[in-house]
Amino acid sequence: MTSAASARSRSFWAWGYEDKFPDDAARRALAEQVSAVLGVACMPRALPSFSNLRLPVPRVGAPASLAALASVDPRDRALHTYGRSYRDVVRAFRLDFATAPDLVLAPRTDDDVADALAWAEEEKVCIVPFGGGTSVVGGVECPLPSGFRGVASLDLTAMDRVLAVDAVSRAALVQAGATGPVLEEQLAAHGLTLRHFPQSFELSTVGGWIATRAGGHYATLLTHIDDFVESIRMVTPRGVWESRRLPASGAGPSPDRLALGSEGILGVITQAWLRVVPRPRFRASVSVYYATFAEGAEACRAIAQAGLYPSNCRLLDAREALLHGVPSDGKNVLLLAFESADHPLAPWMERALALATAHGGACSSPPVYADEGETARANETATSWRRAFFDAPYLQSALVTLGVLADTFETACTWDKFPALHKQVKRAVLDALGRECGGGVVTCRFTHVYPDGPAPYYTFVGAAREGHELEQWAAIKKAASDALSACGATITHHHAVGRTHRPWYDRERPDPFALALRAAKKAVDPMAVLNPGVLVDP
Amino acid sequence: MTSAASARSRSFWAWGYEDKFPDDAARRALAEQVSAVLGVACMPRALPSFSNLRLPVPRVGAPASLAALASVDPRDRALHTYGRSYRDVVRAFRLDFATAPDLVLAPRTDDDVADALAWAEEEKVCIVPFGGGTSVVGGVECPLPSGFRGVASLDLTAMDRVLAVDAVSRAALVQAGATGPVLEEQLAAHGLTLRHFPQSFELSTVGGWIATRAGGHYATLLTHIDDFVESIRMVTPRGVWESRRLPASGAGPSPDRLALGSEGILGVITQAWLRVVPRPRFRASVSVYYATFAEGAEACRAIAQAGLYPSNCRLLDAREALLHGVPSDGKNVLLLAFESADHPLAPWMERALALATAHGGACSSPPVYADEGETARANETATSWRRAFFDAPYLQSALVTLGVLADTFETACTWDKFPALHKQVKRAVLDALGRECGGGVVTCRFTHVYPDGPAPYYTFVGAAREGHELEQWAAIKKAASDALSACGATITHHHAVGRTHRPWYDRERPDPFALALRAAKKAVDPMAVLNPGVLVDP
Repeated sequence: MTSAASARSRSFWAWGYEDKFPDDAARRALAEQVSAVLGVACMPRALPSFSNLRLPVPRVGAPASLAALASVDPRDRALHTYGRSYRDVVRAFRLDFATAPDLVLAPRTDDDVADALAWAEEEKVCIVPFGGGTSVVGGVECPLPSGFRGVASLDLTAMDRVLAVDAVSRAALVQAGATGPVLEEQLAAHGLTLRHFPQSFELSTVGGWIATRAGGHYATLLTHIDDFVESIRMVTPRGVWESRRLPASGAGPSPDRLALGSEGILGVITQAWLRVVPRPRFRASVSVYYATFAEGAEACRAIAQAGLYPSNCRLLDAREALLHGVPSDGKNVLLLAFESADHPLAPWMERALALATAHGGACSSPPVYADEGETARANETATSWRRAFFDAPYLQSALVTLGVLADTFETACTWDKFPALHKQVKRAVLDALGRECGGGVVTCRFTHVYPDGPAPYYTFVGAAREGHELEQWAAIKKAASDALSACGATITHHHAVGRTHRPWYDRERPDPFALALRAAKKAVDPMAVLNPGVLVDP
Repeated sequence: MTSAASARSRSFWAWGYEDKFPDDAARRALAEQVSAVLGVACMPRALPSFSNLRLPVPRVGAPASLAALASVDPRDRALHTYGRSYRDVVRAFRLDFATAPDLVLAPRTDDDVADALAWAEEEKVCIVPFGGGTSVVGGVECPLPSGFRGVASLDLTAMDRVLAVDAVSRAALVQAGATGPVLEEQLAAHGLTLRHFPQSFELSTVGGWIATRAGGHYATLLTHIDDFVESIRMVTPRGVWESRRLPASGAGPSPDRLALGSEGILGVITQAWLRVVPRPRFRASVSVYYATFAEGAEACRAIAQAGLYPSNCRLLDAREALLHGVPSDGKNVLLLAFESADHPLAPWMERALALATAHGGACSSPPVYADEGETARANETATSWRRAFFDAPYLQSALVTLGVLADTFETACTWDKFPALHKQVKRAVLDALGRECGGGVVTCRFTHVYPDGPAPYYTFVGAAREGHELEQWAAIKKAASDALSACGATITHHHAVGRTHRPWYDRERPDPFALALRAAKKAVDPMAVLNPGVLVDP
């Protein structure tokens, strides 16, 4: 078997596909740029070679009944060892794969999943559900817990079909292993689209999005995958958890909302009905510039509270704009856009722009409107942004090879708390960068905005000291997370909890909710085989 | 002590306030109308007298430590025996209060709630959280379960204050016992409003709305109280469950979403931060008429899928219109409206109206636009509708006194399933009315519409046989609920589950979710004192 995830040339250590990884010339150019920014000479290091990789000997093997689904191929095991956080890429770059799963199982049906779970319970093997492997929070890395004999990665990507489309209700039944492009290609055949574009879109899967409450394309209103879910089918060790397909219900607490964000601890999501839409026919976009981030934030608040629901409303500080190749002339820039499959957008855009300029914003050019047949026309700034957005994770991996420590973290808070949070978080991270890296850069953007608050997203960059990257990173991450927690913000708006965010998650969630969630897990996963260590302790 | 709920003259047997109950002349006029519709002579019966009421002797009493919160006053106990379903009103009309709680506790603080729970655990007393007492699904009626010594109703209405307002983030911290009017009066002092107007608005409470996932004012987008909740504070027997105040989060499954719809089985909701808005400054409304309900439904689908988000988009069939005093000339009527505190609404209304007429709709007059200072101007149809909407529950109680069986039920389904569901549900209920009542009437409206489906709401009316009302009702309710279930619709879109909907809820929710929910309850309410019999068995 070759698991579906490895069928294309995924890098065994870096983000994404090998053929998209920056080549030597690009890495040298990047090194020059970053050296200039950090004031430290960054040099490209040699890339790791798969032939030098040594994996631990498997502790368990698949039984004959699961042999057809199983792989112990070293590349498969390596590809399923980590997500793609900074920590993960650093360790993989070092060829440290100490926590490699013993085997990879690639189910093709729900029965395969159930069989895998039954075997895991019997043989005391942990099961780690695995979609695109793009977790940046240690969601798929499972050190062997005591009482267990081994760890199996359960790769869902062979289950990637759109099984049914209901064009009347605008919904599609999708298998959980479909990646963004695989899903969109199948929906496009029906003239439909999900329009959920997380930064991991190229690799991440429907099941992963649901399990981690992924954030997506729309900056307002339908921000999380939660909002697109009509029903979920999840295979648990104690049977199939399948909700009825409904536009809404008031029948008790929502079963879907307990599966959403369950991060593989309650069951393996295998299918979902998702709400889809026709491709947009009308688009409107504009860039608005602000002298201060605070002014831009106030504009975002006004727009978010106006009931206009732009598809894009992303505020980038000047450095963030630079980082993403968005021309901003040293200013903060708000990317504002609307889209619709139903109606021209001038009244929406005009009102939003009036609010944007009323709060100190200025436009260098009027909004660009693209109607049907004109989709080629687009705001150039928005296009630069989009390209840079999807390339950013490749860049992060490349920076690791230059000895640069670069990572992101994100949160959400109410508007009243944002000014203090922004100040304290930036100070905490800059202080930590100073201590750990001798200095560095922090940038910020809003990825999503709500009537009651923004979701700020921070990027930090500093010089790494070879061999000490993980300690440096841990100190900075702790400083950032402590600051978020102290300000009453959430430890994650859409990156999930995994193993990395556990300490701050444990402070954030209500204690009785933790009791309830642990009990719920025990009820459906009594042997605790599913992704142990995530969200709750056994 | 007199509990807050009884401080105003609530009827001990009928819906709402005594002074709003239809007087004898109104009942005679109603009897004439209904007699004409049903073809059966309906006569007003004598109203029940409180002085004839005999309650069971209390099985337990409050300890000295809770004496200041406790009442065994017969009127208090009577007022806390039932909700206000047809079944409840019939039994109360008969002076059957066999399941009266032994006492009523009216906490003033979270500590009072915690004390009540601790006492209940120690003394084996069930606690039934009680807000407005408007449940129509047996949510607050608690027959003594085996192993318990008594039942206490926990009336939250003394905790009814707005504790804080954050005008920047547009949110308010509200105690759970605030009724709709009490809440809105306090918010109005800040120029703010929640705009959540369930039919029970006059009496029901914030905590009740959250515990039952109440549906409200907006016909699209923000349909349930769920959408207004920023955080919840709930006192459980194992500590305080309080979520962080956040506009959004991706940190594990949402604690709020497990509290929402928990119907008093996990804890007692005592406070919530709710998202509020300024009062609308702009309004637009119009009525559109359709020859068939199916045409109107297609128009609703088009509008719901267009991304316009009208505040009202309620389709009434001809009889439903008649019932609510909405002039429709025998046609189906769509009440379409927009509101905004930010912008004039012509572009929104024009596009929605274009969709409405493209699907066979006709207007007798153009949309009415009311801008700031013109709030007095309003679409007359919408005004009639609103008045009749809030009076309907009084009418239902009055009908009981005429020997008329009248009730409502509601659901939601995807658009593809609606035509078959509508046909089968109407047939099932008409057949049952024929068998049980010798005929009757069924009407339908959409209370809310979603991109992927409507929430149809049915009203049925037939002649009751004195002394057999409950059996007649049960047979009709079963026919309706079985039809909903067979069609894959939900047993409730916003009326909740309570004890009445349990059999159909048990078919609807995923089995492993029931295991999880039962375990969650056991973790936070190990003695099972909270509202036993609702949602899960111990």
